Amino acid sequence: MKILAVDTSSPTIALGYSDETQHMFVNYTGSKNHSAVLASLIRTLLSFVKVQVRDIDIFACGIGPGGLTGLRVGIATVQGMAIAHEKKVLPVVSSQALAMNLSSWSGEIVIARKARSGYVYTSCYHDNECILKPSIYAISQVREKILSFKKPMVLGDAKSLFADVAELAPRYLENVRAENLVEIAHSSPEDALISPELLEPLYLQKSIAEINFEKRQPFSS
Amino acid sequence: MKILAVDTSSPTIALGYSDETQHMFVNYTGSKNHSAVLASLIRTLLSFVKVQVRDIDIFACGIGPGGLTGLRVGIATVQGMAIAHEKKVLPVVSSQALAMNLSSWSGEIVIARKARSGYVYTSCYHDNECILKPSIYAISQVREKILSFKKPMVLGDAKSLFADVAELAPRYLENVRAENLVEIAHSSPEDALISPELLEPLYLQKSIAEINFEKRQPFSS
Repeated sequence: MKILAVDTSSPTIALGYSDETQHMFVNYTGSKNHSAVLASLIRTLLSFVKVQVRDIDIFACGIGPGGLTGLRVGIATVQGMAIAHEKKVLPVVSSQALAMNLSSWSGEIVIARKARSGYVYTSCYHDNECILKPSIYAISQVREKILSFKKPMVLGDAKSLFADVAELAPRYLENVRAENLVEIAHSSPEDALISPELLEPLYLQKSIAEINFEKRQPFSS
Repeated sequence: MKILAVDTSSPTIALGYSDETQHMFVNYTGSKNHSAVLASLIRTLLSFVKVQVRDIDIFACGIGPGGLTGLRVGIATVQGMAIAHEKKVLPVVSSQALAMNLSSWSGEIVIARKARSGYVYTSCYHDNECILKPSIYAISQVREKILSFKKPMVLGDAKSLFADVAELAPRYLENVRAENLVEIAHSSPEDALISPELLEPLYLQKSIAEINFEKRQPFSS
């Protein structure tokens, strides 16, 4: 079973390949947009492991939450490869993969990412279980939630908001890693696979464009 | 500051690059020997980040403990690159980098790798501090040590020997990761740098060849 896994929800491109004899994990962060780097990184990796796109059995793809443009690039690229060879895809919640960077932490893992003023994208995990689904919350709500936890550690670019009520994860564990995507792909049931055209980013908030569009409609709420 | 980091102490080749604008981490496991893969992996990575060997400021190198032939390949390659351009090298204890896979574990981290019958290569870490230096110990000694710990987790290919007295780390955290090597390189003091010709594997045990050689000498102990 040949798995190719991609996540572009964070500033890092996480790209993993795994089969029975080879595993290759690449985590790349640079100043160029994901759109300028991803295709060439995929080509580099597949060329190194001497595997072609048509040989891949499962394409795993991080669907966020995360930066929407980056996510769109990752998802579109995976869709392109999977559609070209009629393969299935596996959507992976990026925050679940991120939480695995702290899998040896015995307490609650809180992912907190910047959202619009006063809000954070948040999800919580404990013992590899999701205990709070990814959504957008007021900072005060998240603070209350954290105060109810026994031993919270916060990860993500909004973690400093909670420095007084939780431990903060070290900087080098801040990005989704290819190893975790592939690990999730290995342990996912077969019925989690979907057709590539159904792959969608995990929307937690309407984009500014959508909000403006709705404002211009008559009778909008 | 351009850092290139290599570790070949485990079945995985860990290769990391980092400068002010780009970070690239590659962790590769395959069926070929490290000697057949390492040079080509270094070339692939440096070509992707558009950096030449001569541009590297610091070469960080895992010195073990670990498989001696693999280590020799990594160390020799790093020595070659550093000598060619008169650069310094940073020796990194591989088990310290490995322990960082569990850096969110609040208890003691025990690295246990297979050695000759009845023995294990062991080191222990707690809160990123080394509390037992890498050495070779009788299994019974390690067991006693672990029993004196509050909350031990064991990592390494000999971990199952201690399943009854400690938690065992998950399989996907078993190999040294490039991210950790680079993180150690970033936080090392400048006086930890040495001349490439001084780079040596961390010997924990005489090789079979050395033991046989000594046996053949008159007056050997």
